[in-house]
Amino acid sequence: MPEIAAGAPLAKLLLESILRAGTALQAGDVIVLAQKIISKAEGRVVQLAGVTPSGRAQNIAREAGKDPRIVELMLRESRKVLRVKPGVIIVEHNLGFVMANAGIDQSNVPDGDEAVLLLPENPDASARRLRDELRERTGMETGVLVIDSFGRAWRNGVTGTAIGIAGMPALIDLRGNRDREGRALRVTQVAAADELAAAASLVMGQADEGTPAVLVRGFPYALRESAVNELLRPEAEDLFR
Amino acid sequence: MPEIAAGAPLAKLLLESILRAGTALQAGDVIVLAQKIISKAEGRVVQLAGVTPSGRAQNIAREAGKDPRIVELMLRESRKVLRVKPGVIIVEHNLGFVMANAGIDQSNVPDGDEAVLLLPENPDASARRLRDELRERTGMETGVLVIDSFGRAWRNGVTGTAIGIAGMPALIDLRGNRDREGRALRVTQVAAADELAAAASLVMGQADEGTPAVLVRGFPYALRESAVNELLRPEAEDLFR
Repeated sequence: MPEIAAGAPLAKLLLESILRAGTALQAGDVIVLAQKIISKAEGRVVQLAGVTPSGRAQNIAREAGKDPRIVELMLRESRKVLRVKPGVIIVEHNLGFVMANAGIDQSNVPDGDEAVLLLPENPDASARRLRDELRERTGMETGVLVIDSFGRAWRNGVTGTAIGIAGMPALIDLRGNRDREGRALRVTQVAAADELAAAASLVMGQADEGTPAVLVRGFPYALRESAVNELLRPEAEDLFR
Repeated sequence: MPEIAAGAPLAKLLLESILRAGTALQAGDVIVLAQKIISKAEGRVVQLAGVTPSGRAQNIAREAGKDPRIVELMLRESRKVLRVKPGVIIVEHNLGFVMANAGIDQSNVPDGDEAVLLLPENPDASARRLRDELRERTGMETGVLVIDSFGRAWRNGVTGTAIGIAGMPALIDLRGNRDREGRALRVTQVAAADELAAAASLVMGQADEGTPAVLVRGFPYALRESAVNELLRPEAEDLFR
Protein backbone atom coordinates (compact mmCIF):
# COMPACT_ATOMS: atom_id res chain seq x y z
CA MET A 1 0.00 0.00 0.00
CA PRO A 2 1.19 3.56 -0.68
CA GLU A 3 1.34 6.16 2.14
CA ILE A 4 -2.31 6.98 2.91
CA ALA A 5 -3.51 10.61 2.91
CA ALA A 6 -6.87 12.04 4.05
CA GLY A 7 -9.56 11.07 1.58
CA ALA A 8 -7.54 8.22 0.07
CA PRO A 9 -9.78 5.72 -1.79
CA LEU A 10 -9.04 2.73 0.46
CA ALA A 11 -11.26 0.16 -1.27
CA LYS A 12 -9.70 0.92 -4.64
CA LEU A 13 -6.16 0.83 -3.23
CA LEU A 14 -6.84 -2.45 -1.43
CA LEU A 15 -8.22 -4.12 -4.54
CA GLU A 16 -5.19 -2.95 -6.52
CA SER A 17 -2.87 -4.38 -3.83
CA ILE A 18 -4.72 -7.68 -3.91
CA LEU A 19 -4.34 -7.86 -7.68
CA ARG A 20 -0.63 -7.06 -7.39
CA ALA A 21 -0.38 -9.94 -4.89
CA GLY A 22 -1.59 -12.20 -7.70
CA THR A 23 -5.11 -12.96 -6.50
CA ALA A 24 -8.61 -11.44 -6.43
CA LEU A 25 -11.10 -10.84 -3.65
CA GLN A 26 -13.32 -13.89 -3.04
CA ALA A 27 -16.60 -14.31 -1.17
CA GLY A 28 -15.83 -15.20 2.46
CA ASP A 29 -12.49 -13.40 2.53
CA VAL A 30 -11.78 -11.05 5.42
CA ILE A 31 -9.70 -7.89 4.98
CA VAL A 32 -7.85 -6.84 8.12
CA LEU A 33 -6.65 -3.24 8.28
CA ALA A 34 -4.36 -1.46 10.71
CA GLN A 35 -6.21 1.35 12.50
CA LYS A 36 -3.58 3.74 11.32
CA ILE A 37 -4.52 3.68 7.66
CA ILE A 38 -8.21 4.10 8.43
CA SER A 39 -7.42 7.05 10.70
CA LYS A 40 -5.18 8.62 8.06
CA ALA A 41 -7.75 8.16 5.30
CA GLU A 42 -10.35 9.75 7.58
CA GLY A 43 -8.14 12.72 8.38
CA ARG A 44 -7.84 12.00 12.12
CA VAL A 45 -4.50 13.83 12.36
CA VAL A 46 -4.41 16.58 15.02
CA GLN A 47 -1.78 19.31 15.03
CA LEU A 48 -0.52 19.73 18.59
CA ALA A 49 0.04 23.48 18.13
CA GLY A 50 -3.73 23.99 18.28
CA VAL A 51 -4.27 22.01 21.51
CA THR A 52 -4.45 23.86 24.86
CA PRO A 53 -4.07 21.47 27.82
CA SER A 54 -6.46 21.84 30.75
CA GLY A 55 -5.18 21.89 34.31
CA ARG A 56 -6.21 18.26 34.70
CA ALA A 57 -4.27 17.29 31.57
CA GLN A 58 -1.22 19.13 32.91
CA ASN A 59 -1.40 17.26 36.22
CA ILE A 60 -1.74 13.85 34.59
CA ALA A 61 0.99 14.70 32.08
CA ARG A 62 3.34 15.54 34.95
CA GLU A 63 2.56 12.26 36.70
CA ALA A 64 2.95 10.20 33.53
CA GLY A 65 5.87 12.14 32.04
CA LYS A 66 4.02 12.88 28.80
CA ASP A 67 3.31 15.89 26.57
CA PRO A 68 0.36 17.77 28.20
CA ARG A 69 -1.15 18.55 24.79
CA ILE A 70 -1.27 14.83 23.95
CA VAL A 71 -2.73 14.06 27.39
CA GLU A 72 -5.41 16.71 26.72
CA LEU A 73 -6.36 14.81 23.56
CA MET A 74 -6.38 11.53 25.52
CA LEU A 75 -8.83 13.04 28.00
CA ARG A 76 -11.08 14.31 25.20
CA GLU A 77 -11.06 10.85 23.62
CA SER A 78 -11.90 9.05 26.87
CA ARG A 79 -14.74 8.53 29.32
CA LYS A 80 -12.53 7.72 32.23
CA VAL A 81 -8.89 7.53 33.32
CA LEU A 82 -8.31 4.17 35.01
CA ARG A 83 -4.59 4.22 35.90
CA VAL A 84 -1.67 6.66 35.68
CA LYS A 85 1.97 5.95 36.40
CA PRO A 86 5.24 7.13 34.86
CA GLY A 87 5.10 6.29 31.16
CA VAL A 88 1.60 4.77 31.30
CA ILE A 89 -1.94 6.17 31.07
CA ILE A 90 -4.76 3.59 30.89
CA VAL A 91 -8.17 4.94 29.92
CA GLU A 92 -11.61 3.80 29.03
CA HIS A 93 -11.90 5.25 25.52
CA ASN A 94 -15.14 6.92 24.40
CA LEU A 95 -15.58 3.89 22.13
CA GLY A 96 -15.54 1.60 25.20
CA PHE A 97 -12.03 0.14 24.85
CA VAL A 98 -9.83 -0.13 27.94
CA MET A 99 -6.46 0.79 26.47
CA ALA A 100 -3.23 2.73 26.89
CA ASN A 101 -2.98 6.35 25.74
CA ALA A 102 -6.49 6.37 24.23
CA GLY A 103 -4.92 4.82 21.14
CA ILE A 104 -3.19 8.10 20.26
CA ASP A 105 -0.08 7.61 18.19
CA GLN A 106 2.83 9.70 17.00
CA SER A 107 4.82 7.06 15.12
CA ASN A 108 4.37 6.75 11.36
CA VAL A 109 2.47 10.05 11.28
CA PRO A 110 3.94 12.53 8.81
CA ASP A 111 5.17 15.49 10.86
CA GLY A 112 4.65 13.34 13.97
CA ASP A 113 6.75 15.50 16.28
CA GLU A 114 3.99 18.09 16.15
CA ALA A 115 1.03 15.94 15.08
CA VAL A 116 -0.74 12.83 16.38
CA LEU A 117 -3.27 10.36 15.02
CA LEU A 118 -6.54 9.60 16.83
CA LEU A 119 -8.56 6.39 16.48
CA PRO A 120 -11.28 6.48 13.81
CA GLU A 121 -14.41 8.20 15.10
CA ASN A 122 -16.50 5.05 14.58
CA PRO A 123 -14.38 2.08 13.52
CA ASP A 124 -17.41 -0.19 13.00
CA ALA A 125 -18.83 2.36 10.57
CA SER A 126 -15.43 2.65 8.85
CA ALA A 127 -15.38 -1.14 8.44
CA ARG A 128 -18.96 -1.20 7.13
CA ARG A 129 -18.30 1.53 4.57
CA LEU A 130 -15.27 -0.31 3.28
CA ARG A 131 -17.11 -3.65 3.19
CA ASP A 132 -19.97 -2.00 1.28
CA GLU A 133 -17.62 -0.45 -1.23
CA LEU A 134 -15.75 -3.74 -1.72
CA ARG A 135 -19.12 -5.39 -2.38
CA GLU A 136 -20.11 -2.69 -4.88
CA ARG A 137 -16.82 -2.97 -6.74
CA THR A 138 -16.52 -6.77 -6.78
CA GLY A 139 -19.93 -8.25 -5.95
CA MET A 140 -18.22 -10.29 -3.21
CA GLU A 141 -19.54 -10.64 0.33
CA THR A 142 -16.53 -10.17 2.62
CA GLY A 143 -15.69 -9.25 6.20
CA VAL A 144 -13.65 -6.22 7.25
CA LEU A 145 -11.76 -5.99 10.53
CA VAL A 146 -9.97 -2.88 11.86
CA ILE A 147 -7.27 -3.64 14.42
CA ASP A 148 -4.88 -1.87 16.75
CA SER A 149 -2.09 -3.12 19.05
CA PHE A 150 -3.27 -3.30 22.66
CA GLY A 151 -1.39 -4.03 25.84
CA ARG A 152 -3.01 -6.44 28.29
CA ALA A 153 -3.42 -6.76 32.03
CA TRP A 154 -1.03 -9.32 33.57
CA ARG A 155 1.02 -10.04 30.45
CA ASN A 156 3.85 -8.23 28.67
CA GLY A 157 3.77 -7.07 25.09
CA VAL A 158 0.99 -5.98 22.78
CA THR A 159 -1.24 -8.12 20.58
CA GLY A 160 -3.39 -7.20 17.61
CA THR A 161 -6.92 -6.48 18.87
CA ALA A 162 -10.20 -5.76 17.07
CA ILE A 163 -11.55 -2.19 17.21
CA GLY A 164 -13.98 -2.21 14.26
CA ILE A 165 -15.92 -5.02 12.60
CA ALA A 166 -18.21 -5.48 9.62
CA GLY A 167 -19.57 -8.67 8.10
CA MET A 168 -17.71 -11.15 10.30
CA PRO A 169 -18.45 -12.52 13.78
CA ALA A 170 -16.85 -10.76 16.74
CA LEU A 171 -17.70 -13.62 19.13
CA ILE A 172 -18.44 -17.28 18.46
CA ASP A 173 -21.04 -18.58 20.88
CA LEU A 174 -20.44 -22.21 21.83
CA ARG A 175 -23.10 -22.48 24.52
CA GLY A 176 -25.04 -25.62 23.81
CA ASN A 177 -22.08 -27.26 22.06
CA ARG A 178 -20.84 -30.51 23.58
CA ASP A 179 -17.50 -32.25 23.97
CA ARG A 180 -16.78 -35.77 22.70
CA GLU A 181 -18.35 -37.21 25.84
CA GLY A 182 -21.47 -35.06 25.49
CA ARG A 183 -20.63 -32.64 28.32
CA ALA A 184 -20.99 -28.85 28.11
CA LEU A 185 -17.77 -27.09 27.09
CA ARG A 186 -15.76 -25.09 29.61
CA VAL A 187 -15.27 -22.35 27.03
CA THR A 188 -18.52 -20.75 25.99
CA GLN A 189 -17.52 -17.76 23.88
CA VAL A 190 -14.50 -17.42 21.60
CA ALA A 191 -13.30 -13.92 20.68
CA ALA A 192 -12.73 -14.96 17.07
CA ALA A 193 -12.29 -11.39 15.83
CA ASP A 194 -9.54 -10.79 18.40
CA GLU A 195 -7.89 -14.08 17.46
CA LEU A 196 -7.93 -13.03 13.81
CA ALA A 197 -6.64 -9.57 14.77
CA ALA A 198 -3.68 -11.20 16.51
CA ALA A 199 -3.01 -13.49 13.56
CA ALA A 200 -3.08 -10.57 11.11
CA SER A 201 -0.88 -8.47 13.39
CA LEU A 202 1.82 -11.17 13.20
CA VAL A 203 1.86 -10.76 9.44
CA MET A 204 1.72 -6.96 9.54
CA GLY A 205 4.70 -6.31 11.79
CA GLN A 206 5.07 -3.00 13.63
CA ALA A 207 8.04 -1.11 12.26
CA ASP A 208 9.28 0.30 8.98
CA GLU A 209 8.47 -2.83 7.05
CA GLY A 210 4.85 -2.64 8.26
CA THR A 211 2.13 -4.06 6.03
CA PRO A 212 -1.07 -2.19 6.92
CA ALA A 213 -3.55 -4.64 5.39
CA VAL A 214 -3.88 -8.42 5.34
CA LEU A 215 -6.11 -10.58 3.16
CA VAL A 216 -7.46 -13.57 5.12
CA ARG A 217 -8.71 -16.55 3.17
CA GLY A 218 -10.21 -19.54 4.96
CA PHE A 219 -11.53 -17.85 8.10
CA PRO A 220 -13.11 -20.89 9.79
CA TYR A 221 -16.42 -19.38 10.95
CA ALA A 222 -19.46 -18.32 8.91
CA LEU A 223 -19.61 -14.60 8.12
CA ARG A 224 -22.44 -12.63 9.74
CA GLU A 225 -23.20 -9.04 10.71
CA SER A 226 -21.56 -8.00 13.98
CA ALA A 227 -19.99 -5.07 15.83
CA VAL A 228 -17.02 -4.61 18.12
CA ASN A 229 -19.39 -3.96 21.00
CA GLU A 230 -19.89 -7.75 21.28
CA LEU A 231 -16.29 -7.94 22.50
CA LEU A 232 -16.57 -5.27 25.19
CA ARG A 233 -17.36 -6.54 28.66
CA PRO A 234 -19.77 -4.15 30.38
CA GLU A 235 -18.22 -2.41 33.39
CA ALA A 236 -20.81 -3.96 35.72
CA GLU A 237 -19.61 -7.47 34.75
CA ASP A 238 -15.93 -6.57 34.77
CA LEU A 239 -13.82 -7.65 37.76
CA PHE A 240 -10.75 -5.60 36.82
CA ARG A 241 -11.49 -1.90 36.42
CA MET B 1 -4.56 -36.96 16.20
CA PRO B 2 -5.99 -39.96 18.05
CA GLU B 3 -7.33 -39.62 21.62
CA ILE B 4 -4.22 -39.10 23.78
CA ALA B 5 -3.60 -41.33 26.81
CA ALA B 6 -0.99 -40.97 29.57
CA GLY B 7 2.43 -41.79 28.16
CA ALA B 8 1.40 -41.30 24.53
CA PRO B 9 4.40 -40.72 22.23
CA LEU B 10 3.45 -37.18 21.16
CA ALA B 11 6.42 -36.46 18.88
CA LYS B 12 5.85 -39.67 16.92
CA LEU B 13 2.08 -39.06 16.68
CA LEU B 14 2.65 -35.47 15.53
CA LEU B 15 5.12 -36.49 12.82
CA GLU B 16 2.67 -39.14 11.59
CA SER B 17 -0.11 -36.52 11.47
CA ILE B 18 2.11 -34.15 9.53
CA LEU B 19 2.89 -36.87 7.00
CA ARG B 20 -0.81 -37.69 6.67
CA ALA B 21 -1.38 -33.97 5.99
CA GLY B 22 0.91 -34.39 2.98
CA THR B 23 3.98 -32.52 4.18
CA ALA B 24 7.04 -33.00 6.40
CA LEU B 25 8.49 -31.00 9.26
CA GLN B 26 10.82 -28.22 8.04
CA ALA B 27 13.41 -26.12 9.83
CA GLY B 28 11.73 -22.95 11.14
CA ASP B 29 8.30 -24.55 11.51
CA VAL B 30 6.46 -24.06 14.79
CA ILE B 31 4.18 -26.75 16.23
CA VAL B 32 1.36 -25.37 18.36
CA LEU B 33 -0.32 -27.79 20.77
CA ALA B 34 -3.44 -27.48 22.86
CA GLN B 35 -2.62 -27.74 26.57
CA LYS B 36 -5.10 -30.56 26.84
CA ILE B 37 -3.10 -33.11 24.86
CA ILE B 38 0.10 -32.30 26.75
CA SER B 39 -1.73 -32.68 30.06
CA LYS B 40 -3.28 -35.97 28.96
CA ALA B 41 0.04 -37.34 27.71
CA GLU B 42 1.60 -36.36 31.05
CA GLY B 43 -1.15 -38.04 33.06
CA ARG B 44 -2.46 -34.85 34.71
CA VAL B 45 -5.93 -36.33 35.20
CA VAL B 46 -7.18 -36.17 38.81
CA GLN B 47 -10.04 -38.35 40.06
CA LEU B 48 -12.33 -36.17 42.15
CA ALA B 49 -13.25 -39.05 44.47
CA GLY B 50 -9.80 -38.74 46.05
CA VAL B 51 -9.99 -34.98 46.72
CA THR B 52 -11.07 -33.68 50.15
CA PRO B 53 -11.98 -29.99 50.06
CA SER B 54 -10.63 -27.73 52.81
CA GLY B 55 -12.91 -25.30 54.63
CA ARG B 56 -11.55 -22.48 52.48
CA ALA B 57 -12.32 -24.41 49.30
CA GLN B 58 -15.84 -25.06 50.55
CA ASN B 59 -16.40 -21.36 51.24
CA ILE B 60 -15.13 -20.26 47.84
CA ALA B 61 -17.08 -23.05 46.14
CA ARG B 62 -20.26 -21.81 47.78
CA GLU B 63 -19.60 -18.24 46.65
CA ALA B 64 -18.74 -19.29 43.09
CA GLY B 65 -21.31 -22.06 42.78
CA LYS B 66 -18.72 -24.70 41.92
CA ASP B 67 -17.80 -28.24 43.00
CA PRO B 68 -15.75 -27.86 46.25
CA ARG B 69 -13.42 -30.69 45.19
CA ILE B 70 -12.55 -28.84 41.98
CA VAL B 71 -12.09 -25.60 43.93
CA GLU B 72 -9.74 -27.48 46.27
CA LEU B 73 -7.62 -28.43 43.23
CA MET B 74 -7.73 -24.82 42.00
CA LEU B 75 -6.36 -23.66 45.35
CA ARG B 76 -3.58 -26.26 45.28
CA GLU B 77 -2.65 -25.14 41.75
CA SER B 78 -2.57 -21.42 42.64
CA ARG B 79 -0.55 -18.89 44.59
CA LYS B 80 -3.40 -16.51 45.08
CA VAL B 81 -7.12 -16.09 44.53
CA LEU B 82 -7.72 -12.69 42.89
CA ARG B 83 -11.50 -12.57 42.36
CA VAL B 84 -14.52 -14.74 43.16
CA LYS B 85 -18.08 -14.22 41.98
CA PRO B 86 -20.88 -16.59 40.95
CA GLY B 87 -19.52 -18.77 38.14
CA VAL B 88 -16.05 -17.18 38.16
CA ILE B 89 -12.83 -17.79 40.09
CA ILE B 90 -9.76 -15.84 38.92
CA VAL B 91 -6.43 -16.97 40.34
CA GLU B 92 -2.76 -16.42 39.98
CA HIS B 93 -1.64 -19.92 39.02
CA ASN B 94 1.51 -21.42 40.53
CA LEU B 95 3.03 -21.03 37.05
CA GLY B 96 2.39 -17.25 37.20
CA PHE B 97 -0.61 -17.03 34.88
CA VAL B 98 -3.57 -14.88 35.90
CA MET B 99 -6.44 -17.02 34.68
CA ALA B 100 -9.89 -18.43 35.40
CA ASN B 101 -10.30 -21.72 37.32
CA ALA B 102 -6.53 -22.35 37.46
CA GLY B 103 -6.89 -23.83 33.98
CA ILE B 104 -8.72 -26.87 35.35
CA ASP B 105 -10.99 -28.49 32.81
CA GLN B 106 -13.66 -31.17 32.78
CA SER B 107 -14.62 -31.09 29.10
CA ASN B 108 -13.04 -33.60 26.73
CA VAL B 109 -11.67 -35.58 29.70
CA PRO B 110 -12.67 -39.25 29.62
CA ASP B 111 -14.86 -39.85 32.68
CA GLY B 112 -15.01 -36.05 33.11
CA ASP B 113 -17.96 -36.06 35.48
CA GLU B 114 -15.66 -37.50 38.11
CA ALA B 115 -12.25 -36.44 36.76
CA VAL B 116 -10.53 -33.20 35.77
CA LEU B 117 -7.41 -32.24 33.87
CA LEU B 118 -4.74 -29.96 35.38
CA LEU B 119 -2.28 -27.82 33.40
CA PRO B 120 1.07 -29.48 32.66
CA GLU B 121 3.41 -29.24 35.64
CA ASN B 122 5.99 -27.25 33.63
CA PRO B 123 4.70 -26.36 30.16
CA ASP B 124 8.04 -24.85 29.06
CA ALA B 125 9.75 -28.14 29.92
CA SER B 126 7.01 -30.05 28.08
CA ALA B 127 7.60 -27.87 25.01
CA ARG B 128 11.37 -28.31 25.24
CA ARG B 129 11.13 -32.10 25.52
CA LEU B 130 8.91 -32.24 22.47
CA ARG B 131 11.12 -29.88 20.50
CA ASP B 132 14.18 -31.97 21.41
CA GLU B 133 12.49 -35.16 20.34
CA LEU B 134 11.33 -33.62 17.05
CA ARG B 135 14.93 -32.55 16.44
CA GLU B 136 16.23 -36.05 17.21
CA ARG B 137 13.72 -37.70 14.91
CA THR B 138 13.98 -35.26 11.98
CA GLY B 139 17.14 -33.19 12.42
CA MET B 140 15.00 -30.08 12.05
CA GLU B 141 15.24 -27.02 14.33
CA THR B 142 11.65 -26.07 15.17
CA GLY B 143 9.66 -24.14 17.74
CA VAL B 144 7.01 -25.64 20.02
CA LEU B 145 4.22 -23.63 21.61
CA VAL B 146 1.71 -24.94 24.19
CA ILE B 147 -1.50 -22.91 24.36
CA ASP B 148 -4.69 -22.67 26.36
CA SER B 149 -7.84 -20.54 26.01
CA PHE B 150 -7.78 -17.58 28.41
CA GLY B 151 -10.40 -15.00 29.22
CA ARG B 152 -9.27 -11.39 29.40
CA ALA B 153 -9.94 -8.34 31.55
CA TRP B 154 -12.32 -5.85 29.87
CA ARG B 155 -13.22 -7.97 26.85
CA ASN B 156 -15.61 -10.87 26.28
CA GLY B 157 -14.63 -14.26 24.99
CA VAL B 158 -11.47 -16.31 25.23
CA THR B 159 -8.42 -16.22 22.98
CA GLY B 160 -5.63 -18.72 22.51
CA THR B 161 -2.76 -17.80 24.85
CA ALA B 162 0.77 -19.15 25.27
CA ILE B 163 1.51 -21.21 28.40
CA GLY B 164 4.69 -23.05 27.32
CA ILE B 165 7.40 -22.16 24.82
CA ALA B 166 10.52 -23.74 23.35
CA GLY B 167 12.68 -22.57 20.48
CA MET B 168 10.62 -19.56 19.43
CA PRO B 169 10.48 -15.99 20.74
CA ALA B 170 7.84 -15.18 23.34
CA LEU B 171 8.32 -11.42 22.93
CA ILE B 172 9.71 -9.40 20.04
CA ASP B 173 11.63 -6.39 21.30
CA LEU B 174 11.27 -3.38 19.01
CA ARG B 175 13.02 -0.87 21.25
CA GLY B 176 15.48 0.95 19.06
CA ASN B 177 13.44 0.34 15.90
CA ARG B 178 12.25 3.43 14.08
CA ASP B 179 9.22 4.40 12.02
CA ARG B 180 9.39 5.70 8.43
CA GLU B 181 10.16 9.18 9.73
CA GLY B 182 12.90 7.94 12.04
CA ARG B 183 10.93 8.31 15.30
CA ALA B 184 10.82 5.71 18.06
CA LEU B 185 7.84 3.34 17.81
CA ARG B 186 4.92 3.62 20.21
CA VAL B 187 4.87 -0.15 20.53
CA THR B 188 8.02 -1.54 22.03
CA GLN B 189 7.30 -5.20 22.68
CA VAL B 190 5.09 -7.52 20.67
CA ALA B 191 3.75 -10.67 22.34
CA ALA B 192 4.42 -12.73 19.22
CA ALA B 193 3.88 -16.07 20.97
CA ASP B 194 0.44 -14.95 22.15
CA GLU B 195 -0.39 -13.69 18.66
CA LEU B 196 0.58 -17.07 17.25
CA ALA B 197 -1.38 -18.82 20.00
CA ALA B 198 -4.48 -16.86 18.97
CA ALA B 199 -3.92 -17.62 15.31
CA ALA B 200 -3.54 -21.34 15.99
CA SER B 201 -6.57 -21.35 18.27
CA LEU B 202 -8.70 -20.07 15.36
CA VAL B 203 -7.67 -23.13 13.38
CA MET B 204 -8.07 -25.55 16.29
CA GLY B 205 -11.66 -24.71 17.25
CA GLN B 206 -13.02 -25.60 20.69
CA ALA B 207 -15.66 -28.27 20.37
CA ASP B 208 -16.08 -31.79 19.08
CA GLU B 209 -14.29 -31.07 15.84
CA GLY B 210 -11.27 -29.76 17.75
CA THR B 211 -7.82 -30.10 16.19
CA PRO B 212 -5.33 -30.24 19.06
CA ALA B 213 -2.18 -29.43 17.06
CA VAL B 214 -1.35 -26.92 14.33
CA LEU B 215 1.71 -26.82 12.08
CA VAL B 216 2.80 -23.20 11.47
CA ARG B 217 4.98 -22.51 8.45
CA GLY B 218 6.27 -19.00 7.77
CA PHE B 219 6.35 -17.61 11.31
CA PRO B 220 7.76 -14.15 10.56
CA TYR B 221 10.34 -13.84 13.35
CA ALA B 222 13.65 -15.63 13.82
CA LEU B 223 13.54 -18.66 16.12
CA ARG B 224 15.46 -18.36 19.39
CA GLU B 225 15.40 -19.91 22.86
CA SER B 226 12.75 -18.40 25.11
CA ALA B 227 10.31 -19.18 27.93
CA VAL B 228 6.76 -18.21 28.78
CA ASN B 229 8.05 -16.16 31.70
CA GLU B 230 8.95 -13.39 29.21
CA LEU B 231 5.22 -12.87 28.74
CA LEU B 232 4.32 -12.60 32.43
CA ARG B 233 4.22 -9.09 33.83
CA PRO B 234 5.65 -9.07 37.35
CA GLU B 235 3.04 -8.21 39.98
CA ALA B 236 5.01 -5.11 41.01
CA GLU B 237 4.64 -3.67 37.48
CA ASP B 238 1.02 -4.74 37.06
CA LEU B 239 -1.70 -2.12 37.46
CA PHE B 240 -4.62 -4.57 37.47
CA ARG B 241 -4.30 -7.19 40.20
